[in-house]
Amino acid sequence: MKGGGSVADFEPRDADYGRRVRESFARQRAMETFGARLLRVAPGEVEIGVDFDEAFTQQHGYLHAGLVTAMVDTACGYAALSLTEPGAEVLSVEFKLNLLSPAAGRRFVARARVVRAGRNLTVCAGDFYSVKEGGGEKVVATMLATMMKVAG
Amino acid sequence: MKGGGSVADFEPRDADYGRRVRESFARQRAMETFGARLLRVAPGEVEIGVDFDEAFTQQHGYLHAGLVTAMVDTACGYAALSLTEPGAEVLSVEFKLNLLSPAAGRRFVARARVVRAGRNLTVCAGDFYSVKEGGGEKVVATMLATMMKVAG
Amino acid sequence: MKGGGSVADFEPRDADYGRRVRESFARQRAMETFGARLLRVAPGEVEIGVDFDEAFTQQHGYLHAGLVTAMVDTACGYAALSLTEPGAEVLSVEFKLNLLSPAAGRRFVARARVVRAGRNLTVCAGDFYSVKEGGGEKVVATMLATMMKVAG
Amino acid sequence: MKGGGSVADFEPRDADYGRRVRESFARQRAMETFGARLLRVAPGEVEIGVDFDEAFTQQHGYLHAGLVTAMVDTACGYAALSLTEPGAEVLSVEFKLNLLSPAAGRRFVARARVVRAGRNLTVCAGDFYSVKEGGGEKVVATMLATMMKVAG
Repeated sequence: MKGGGSVADFEPRDADYGRRVRESFARQRAMETFGARLLRVAPGEVEIGVDFDEAFTQQHGYLHAGLVTAMVDTACGYAALSLTEPGAEVLSVEFKLNLLSPAAGRRFVARARVVRAGRNLTVCAGDFYSVKEGGGEKVVATMLATMMKVAG
Repeated sequence: MKGGGSVADFEPRDADYGRRVRESFARQRAMETFGARLLRVAPGEVEIGVDFDEAFTQQHGYLHAGLVTAMVDTACGYAALSLTEPGAEVLSVEFKLNLLSPAAGRRFVARARVVRAGRNLTVCAGDFYSVKEGGGEKVVATMLATMMKVAG
Repeated sequence: MKGGGSVADFEPRDADYGRRVRESFARQRAMETFGARLLRVAPGEVEIGVDFDEAFTQQHGYLHAGLVTAMVDTACGYAALSLTEPGAEVLSVEFKLNLLSPAAGRRFVARARVVRAGRNLTVCAGDFYSVKEGGGEKVVATMLATMMKVAG
Repeated sequence: MKGGGSVADFEPRDADYGRRVRESFARQRAMETFGARLLRVAPGEVEIGVDFDEAFTQQHGYLHAGLVTAMVDTACGYAALSLTEPGAEVLSVEFKLNLLSPAAGRRFVARARVVRAGRNLTVCAGDFYSVKEGGGEKVVATMLATMMKVAG
């Protein structure tokens, strides 16, 4: 289990997993509205970038937890999708998000990885980072999520 | 505990709790962008309404889980805030959301209630409903959340 | 959704659901070791009682959160099982527990109810109460859990 | 954040953190009853071992999720405690546990690490592993937990 100390290497069941993830991401109007970009897709791992946008801030001027959730949940979903067979889709069953520091900054990245891929359910972990100007990152939130595979 | 079978009646510590909730809500740019409206504020209970907006949909055309989360988390936060003393503010520590059915429909409502108000931490429960055309509601998601009181 | 404001009435698919729950409960050695008793089984609702036992206390002399979890998780699982067809079994996928007050007292009760019963997954909510000497209850913890139906 | 990709090194505020963890662990009657042993204490990291015990099994003969929770929650709590100042204690606010595979085997280990240590709240991640006969481990469950520091 990645994130738990030991390391898992995942073998994709669909050589074309990257295209499936990108096409599904492109159909998400919310991702477009939020200005989110798919930065990386690997078997069991996905990274999404987003910039600060005042339109999605909470009362103290930081990014709203709902936007943070949207990014990490989406990254978790596509990390799970990357390991499924052709034609399958993935739905979020549930997630828990711990908010660790304010979502302050100009650029952010959500990173998710599959913890365990079961027959129907896939458990993912994801984090949301604020990317500092000179490099370096600060963790903003961490998620543990359950995804369900469904026929496409 | 409401939602747990027994009933709790909460006494506000600040007679002006309603104004504080409304002013904080008005400062949330994300709520304005999502088109969210504060429908009801009572001691320990808050209701927020939002309409379907294609701009915030996921790949199947339903409202994105991030938007659902934004609504229920915000309702939970203000349910907690409604019981605090003057000047206090509330931050989300963490939440768990279970997605129960697709966020399909034209109008939605998030309802949150305080489960237990402690000295520093307040636990809230909230739900997100799709409001049917002819009346009636269908539950879309349910949340259990922890909020922290901070000095304003 | 029970616990969410609206009320759900569940129709059992197996008239013999009570017997199935009781037989499965009787096979749980942990329940016997903890001294737990099945107090009530109804369609989508289960209640389990347990007494204080110093052998299962944490460092401050209260019941350990692991024991609290065992009770509420078990009650959630059987609430889910009560709505399944003959032969099905139920496994815990995940749960979140918020600890609201110390598990102090002599007698305790865990109460769980189905929030939504899907084809494969059932979401349950449960609470753990300390039963006061003269009657009345104090909520100790609240859980939101996901259960999965499996072939027996 | 460990477990999230980046690495955090924690500086203990109390050189005597190890003794405090061991003394508190020794006061937990539940740990004694479960046969749990403190295997490792480092700043922000704790490991607890436990053997299979039929007395704590569920209906299929595996360790009960309540016992798994007891181990990981306790490891998380002491990981948090290891970073506190002299005299402080730690309480569990809430946790979420995902069950990844049956708790089958003869020996088990719970490993927890601090994800972020705040002023009052500490977020921890923990895992429960089945230790295979010839070496190697299989992850059984993963937890994300919130701990609160309190005056001793």
